[in-house]
Amino acid sequence: MKVAFVMGSDSDLDIVRGAVEVVKSFGVEVEVRIISAHRTPAVAEKFAREARENGIGVIVAAAGMAAHLAGVLAAYTTLPVVALPIAAKRLDGIDALLAMVQMPPGIPVATVGIDGSKNAGLLALQILGVSNQEVADKLAQYKEDMEKQVIEKDKKISQQF
Amino acid sequence: MKVAFVMGSDSDLDIVRGAVEVVKSFGVEVEVRIISAHRTPAVAEKFAREARENGIGVIVAAAGMAAHLAGVLAAYTTLPVVALPIAAKRLDGIDALLAMVQMPPGIPVATVGIDGSKNAGLLALQILGVSNQEVADKLAQYKEDMEKQVIEKDKKISQQF
Amino acid sequence: MKVAFVMGSDSDLDIVRGAVEVVKSFGVEVEVRIISAHRTPAVAEKFAREARENGIGVIVAAAGMAAHLAGVLAAYTTLPVVALPIAAKRLDGIDALLAMVQMPPGIPVATVGIDGSKNAGLLALQILGVSNQEVADKLAQYKEDMEKQVIEKDKKISQQF
Amino acid sequence: MKVAFVMGSDSDLDIVRGAVEVVKSFGVEVEVRIISAHRTPAVAEKFAREARENGIGVIVAAAGMAAHLAGVLAAYTTLPVVALPIAAKRLDGIDALLAMVQMPPGIPVATVGIDGSKNAGLLALQILGVSNQEVADKLAQYKEDMEKQVIEKDKKISQQF
Amino acid sequence: MKVAFVMGSDSDLDIVRGAVEVVKSFGVEVEVRIISAHRTPAVAEKFAREARENGIGVIVAAAGMAAHLAGVLAAYTTLPVVALPIAAKRLDGIDALLAMVQMPPGIPVATVGIDGSKNAGLLALQILGVSNQEVADKLAQYKEDMEKQVIEKDKKISQQF
Amino acid sequence: MKVAFVMGSDSDLDIVRGAVEVVKSFGVEVEVRIISAHRTPAVAEKFAREARENGIGVIVAAAGMAAHLAGVLAAYTTLPVVALPIAAKRLDGIDALLAMVQMPPGIPVATVGIDGSKNAGLLALQILGVSNQEVADKLAQYKEDMEKQVIEKDKKISQQF
Amino acid sequence: MKVAFVMGSDSDLDIVRGAVEVVKSFGVEVEVRIISAHRTPAVAEKFAREARENGIGVIVAAAGMAAHLAGVLAAYTTLPVVALPIAAKRLDGIDALLAMVQMPPGIPVATVGIDGSKNAGLLALQILGVSNQEVADKLAQYKEDMEKQVIEKDKKISQQF
Amino acid sequence: MKVAFVMGSDSDLDIVRGAVEVVKSFGVEVEVRIISAHRTPAVAEKFAREARENGIGVIVAAAGMAAHLAGVLAAYTTLPVVALPIAAKRLDGIDALLAMVQMPPGIPVATVGIDGSKNAGLLALQILGVSNQEVADKLAQYKEDMEKQVIEKDKKISQQF
Repeated sequence: MKVAFVMGSDSDLDIVRGAVEVVKSFGVEVEVRIISAHRTPAVAEKFAREARENGIGVIVAAAGMAAHLAGVLAAYTTLPVVALPIAAKRLDGIDALLAMVQMPPGIPVATVGIDGSKNAGLLALQILGVSNQEVADKLAQYKEDMEKQVIEKDKKISQQF
Repeated sequence: MKVAFVMGSDSDLDIVRGAVEVVKSFGVEVEVRIISAHRTPAVAEKFAREARENGIGVIVAAAGMAAHLAGVLAAYTTLPVVALPIAAKRLDGIDALLAMVQMPPGIPVATVGIDGSKNAGLLALQILGVSNQEVADKLAQYKEDMEKQVIEKDKKISQQF
Repeated sequence: MKVAFVMGSDSDLDIVRGAVEVVKSFGVEVEVRIISAHRTPAVAEKFAREARENGIGVIVAAAGMAAHLAGVLAAYTTLPVVALPIAAKRLDGIDALLAMVQMPPGIPVATVGIDGSKNAGLLALQILGVSNQEVADKLAQYKEDMEKQVIEKDKKISQQF
Repeated sequence: MKVAFVMGSDSDLDIVRGAVEVVKSFGVEVEVRIISAHRTPAVAEKFAREARENGIGVIVAAAGMAAHLAGVLAAYTTLPVVALPIAAKRLDGIDALLAMVQMPPGIPVATVGIDGSKNAGLLALQILGVSNQEVADKLAQYKEDMEKQVIEKDKKISQQF
Repeated sequence: MKVAFVMGSDSDLDIVRGAVEVVKSFGVEVEVRIISAHRTPAVAEKFAREARENGIGVIVAAAGMAAHLAGVLAAYTTLPVVALPIAAKRLDGIDALLAMVQMPPGIPVATVGIDGSKNAGLLALQILGVSNQEVADKLAQYKEDMEKQVIEKDKKISQQF
Repeated sequence: MKVAFVMGSDSDLDIVRGAVEVVKSFGVEVEVRIISAHRTPAVAEKFAREARENGIGVIVAAAGMAAHLAGVLAAYTTLPVVALPIAAKRLDGIDALLAMVQMPPGIPVATVGIDGSKNAGLLALQILGVSNQEVADKLAQYKEDMEKQVIEKDKKISQQF
Repeated sequence: MKVAFVMGSDSDLDIVRGAVEVVKSFGVEVEVRIISAHRTPAVAEKFAREARENGIGVIVAAAGMAAHLAGVLAAYTTLPVVALPIAAKRLDGIDALLAMVQMPPGIPVATVGIDGSKNAGLLALQILGVSNQEVADKLAQYKEDMEKQVIEKDKKISQQF
Repeated sequence: MKVAFVMGSDSDLDIVRGAVEVVKSFGVEVEVRIISAHRTPAVAEKFAREARENGIGVIVAAAGMAAHLAGVLAAYTTLPVVALPIAAKRLDGIDALLAMVQMPPGIPVATVGIDGSKNAGLLALQILGVSNQEVADKLAQYKEDMEKQVIEKDKKISQQF
């Protein structure tokens, strides 16, 4: 199963790239799209309606400002949609966060932190890992590696003082 | 030309009614709908696409929380969409306000204050009044009446102290 | 009918220019003014009172901080006033947004996003387009062009991954 | 010299009354008015322009939401204007606070806390007390009385535990 | 596979119950626990470490204030953790939302809206539905039912005006 | 009568200088001090207690973060204290604004906008101008000059478009 | 060593009582005072200056709005001051939180959550417990008791579902 | 007794260094660690459980975003934990502040201001100083030195104007 990354504007790619790369590094296939909830709503609808049959397991939707993209995709699919709020020039992303996370009852999205690209990718992998043991094993390994890195940094720094 | 009122949920009717009534009191025809950006997206699309040819001049869209309704309708029409943010149980409507007003470039909506129902109706009328002299005249009269009411209250209160 | 752009200070011109240009690109006549709600209140009153008879159809009012300009103009006219909140050095424009959008009942303004210049211009055009078929047709074309641009970017990016 | 209290709506009277009473209890003459920046702008202008010659020394302006009243009055007078932000049903008065305190350079207002009625009255008295020794003496007495009251409460409570 | 619901305090049960019920109505097995990140950290660790082997597919973690529960559980498992921020008496849940959604890189949680109980349950079901066709089919049915309900309400209301 | 400027730290001088200069340009005598509410509380007390007898008419207190300076001075004097909140590196001055403006009943301060140095100076002058006709006349002149400057800028810009 | 509880107003007692009781239940002596940073500054100074020699080990300072009390006491003592922000009628205590926690460099206070009375008391006890083994042992017992209570609630609830 | 400084990531060291240095300058022994609540939770548990017996008197925990570190350590120890919220790239540290200060009843932490490194160190010293007369004396000296520095700056600046 693939992870699809959808962003509302190509200016979001700098942030989204981090999410794409973490998923690819797990050997999971990706699809990357620019689809605007407001400028290409028909494309958004078609993409979301057909996502499951196109082999997509999770959709990561990244958008800024009044970030409707994740919600609009979630309206047309029952796949989990990971919402990645992007900070625009003003308001530090609090607008995108609220416009994503505060979805009305019936249509949830799975929101991660503002500009939290790596976490968006890892959450998509965790969702696949519920039923995919290989991904689950790699996630366990990833967790262990993080742990080791912090422990090593801890050793270095505790000796400096 | 009609003013259409669209709300995301029937629980919004208590607020929206104020807007409907001010428009009807001007003798302008209204249409009132419950359409959800997320639960009935196909209805939303159809409604917005056909709004102009159905004789609608302005759409007032009321929604709470991650309020995408106004933006989703605006995606499918070039009519002006007045966005009325509704305060839900938490956050006092600041989520709905930001999810409406912070629209990305290309797809504006005309946002009024939180729960600002009467103003949503009056703004719709002002928009019609750009080319409709009768509505414009009634708006001028409405303004004068407001002025008189305040002046009368002022007289009363200034004598009390 | 003209669109008038009023800003509280010449420092706002950098933002407002985007709105002016989008309106001019539609072949609609513009008028650009610096009028301060607080420093030239008499000019503000005269401008707003005479706006309709001077052939103005919509007023776009841009201001920062305790942004009273849109409301002060709306007090003297029944034309629709588009409020464009400008971010000053502090608070990212949230002060201007609230000082504009939260108008008391009776005197609405049509608020767009913080520094949302292009949308202010497009909203003014949509308002004119209610009764002006030529503007409405150009807006439909503009929408189509935006759609095409996003679709092209989508094609490019989906091939990169 | 009188202290004038101006409020945007008669619904503000419950809050403003506290300010009026503290000023009257100092033996200073008051004037109480309902003037709306947006619904009776001409009255606002006339009131502010003539305030000084009408024997007013300080103006207290109370308003909620996009609270322009203090700024609009300050535009027409060089008297100090005390701005009293009133909490409306939503946002706890943070909109009124920002719409008042964040005045652009050149036109200051003297803002007190949200619904801070008593302090609005006391600030007006302090301003008169700069040149009025009698008011200054009463303020000193008022301060002493407050001190005594707190000291008495302190005695009582410290014995309870 | 089961869905586990963990809450930080029994006072959260009123909110969490909505999530539990929606999951049970889909015929999916649930486990409901009170585990505090701060008061029973050892239980939290044991629960999260063993969750996958105990047949749990998704964990829903509900907490208020400085809501660490979801993050603390996510530290010990690679299963997806749905974070449900609960509004406490003060701050309307904005503290819980930020304390959940803003997870540092490496340890994501899937945050839903404040007090968004039903959505927490539905998101858990969507995650299971990635690989469980029966759940996916029921979600599609659920979506259709919601759509029908809104359409019926729309019919009723549009006839009233 | 003098205007005293008190700041909590010499790093505030860049902002405060604007206030000092506007007051000096009116020919009013100034006194400029660095007094910390927390680091030199005894100096703060002595300064405020003796301010009136030392010929000070208004105190302008500038501070950032948990800005207690204005309140602490106001505790020891009945002179009006103008509170000037300074933006520190984080939070854009919203902490200083709330820590100043939200004074408890009995001890008001007159708060101006964040980093609103010029307005702090002008407000101090307006307070002196209540009883000082020369200052009042200069304020009227200052207002007229501002008006003329805006009108000239308006002329220039309206010809460009 | 005693724990002193100081509150700015007797209206804070409802909240503060919880802190006092938790400290008394540990067998630690308390002193409870009403001292206002602004209304009885001389009492505040004297209290803080003499606190250490009067056998006080920790001061808990509770206040609302522009809550200067903790900082003002900290200015006169080197004892740790626990700051307990109290929510007033407006703003949910965010003003008190920022006015307490954002102390300038040199004068720290130890801030707990809004209305977080029990935690204020426990923090005071933890501070005493650094050098007082009896208090430390009771804190360990208290922690264990909390753990047991949660575990029991967990047992009950996990059986209900 | 030592002061331990724990940070969630080595990127926090720039801020934390200020706290470490102030403590070392008092001749108090320090321990500096990188421990992540989420990436090395087992290390966090072990560190906190053994802190008291390892001669640690106070723990300073610095973290950004959904800053759980202080709370997670406090879950395993009865020593006082000073929470130092670090501003990440977005939101200016308000997320870290709320995720730290709003701890649920039973597990307090002692929060200082955002990026308030020096104050975190001084608060740790004040806590030690409750029972350590040498540290208390140095704190009194430190306070006096600060006072002198401000007084000298005051002298200089008051002569410039």
